[in-house]
Amino acid sequence: MLKLYYAPGSCARASHIALREAGAEFELQLVDFAAAEQREEAYRQINPKGRVPALATDAGVLTETPALLAYIAQSFPHADLATLADPYEVARLQSFNAYLCATVHVAHAHIRRGERWADDPAAIAEMKRKAPEVMADCFQMIEDTFFTGPWVMGDGYTIADPYLFTLTLWLPAHRLDSASYPRVHEHKQRMLERPAVQAAITAEESR
Amino acid sequence: MLKLYYAPGSCARASHIALREAGAEFELQLVDFAAAEQREEAYRQINPKGRVPALATDAGVLTETPALLAYIAQSFPHADLATLADPYEVARLQSFNAYLCATVHVAHAHIRRGERWADDPAAIAEMKRKAPEVMADCFQMIEDTFFTGPWVMGDGYTIADPYLFTLTLWLPAHRLDSASYPRVHEHKQRMLERPAVQAAITAEESR
Repeated sequence: MLKLYYAPGSCARASHIALREAGAEFELQLVDFAAAEQREEAYRQINPKGRVPALATDAGVLTETPALLAYIAQSFPHADLATLADPYEVARLQSFNAYLCATVHVAHAHIRRGERWADDPAAIAEMKRKAPEVMADCFQMIEDTFFTGPWVMGDGYTIADPYLFTLTLWLPAHRLDSASYPRVHEHKQRMLERPAVQAAITAEESR
Repeated sequence: MLKLYYAPGSCARASHIALREAGAEFELQLVDFAAAEQREEAYRQINPKGRVPALATDAGVLTETPALLAYIAQSFPHADLATLADPYEVARLQSFNAYLCATVHVAHAHIRRGERWADDPAAIAEMKRKAPEVMADCFQMIEDTFFTGPWVMGDGYTIADPYLFTLTLWLPAHRLDSASYPRVHEHKQRMLERPAVQAAITAEESR
């Protein structure tokens, strides 16, 4: 059975929601960030990067959200979470998810994980100060350019939707309000109505 | 016909090599970074992010290296640049490419694009100072953990190979030597023997 290693509210939530949308059988395994469990040797045996998510499958452990989401879409094709047969549509979806992973998530990380890129506390404080500005630019670009509507990629709900939703929920950490991005905001509200999303949030918050 | 927007030696080189490996017909379009052409309105009409690569296809423009590489592999299946039918193998490949995109490329960007995450010159200088240390950690992890051998993913040459190769060539900017990572170093040498790699480098450097 699949096992998802997660921390509540982390980017692992995107894969968590996708697993539920796919109707997959899976087990949830909390990685306790408060106890720095992600840096312990036991967890590094599972994911040497010391991060979440990690998805243990019969074939081996997978990491990186875009890869987990692609795996879920391809493994549960009846759930129709991606247009897999069309190279352009697959790439358009991967492009959006890569932007979330390499630009938006990275922008967010500068508010609380600045030690990844600097040792000097003043430099870390400066990254933290600027992070909301960078996040705002990212969400403005999603709002104006990348969001097709009604779902991220257009008419069909895909693996891009839980990923965007997960990162939209990070805006308050930057004192940003999703209401500043009307299409993204409406998307968030619509996501909150989905049983899979409600179940994922409930499961994460009840730990 | 496909058109690849690139800057010499940038991460666009990964897609450039992959297009040649696939035997694709394509046109190369230089984006002149020295003239800041990537920030001009004409280029932003093509890629609003103001970055390379961008790949213009009949269906539309694609951005983000992992997405371009996936598009090339899926569009030219005879070139066998990815094991597309196996969800786990696809995800393992996407996982590696996501790591290059969101962690290694981002680590590199802190040496010369620090203004993305800070305004204060002292903070930008501090990121620049630490960047080689972060790059070294990334390449050590690739060497020890992610590189399967003889190619990145194992016996078969895939779209992960030109991507790793492209980023390996960035090590000197950090005063790091690929020889410190013997498997990565040997991979670089073997890549340099491939006609597609030689043709790509020659085409980029002759502009």
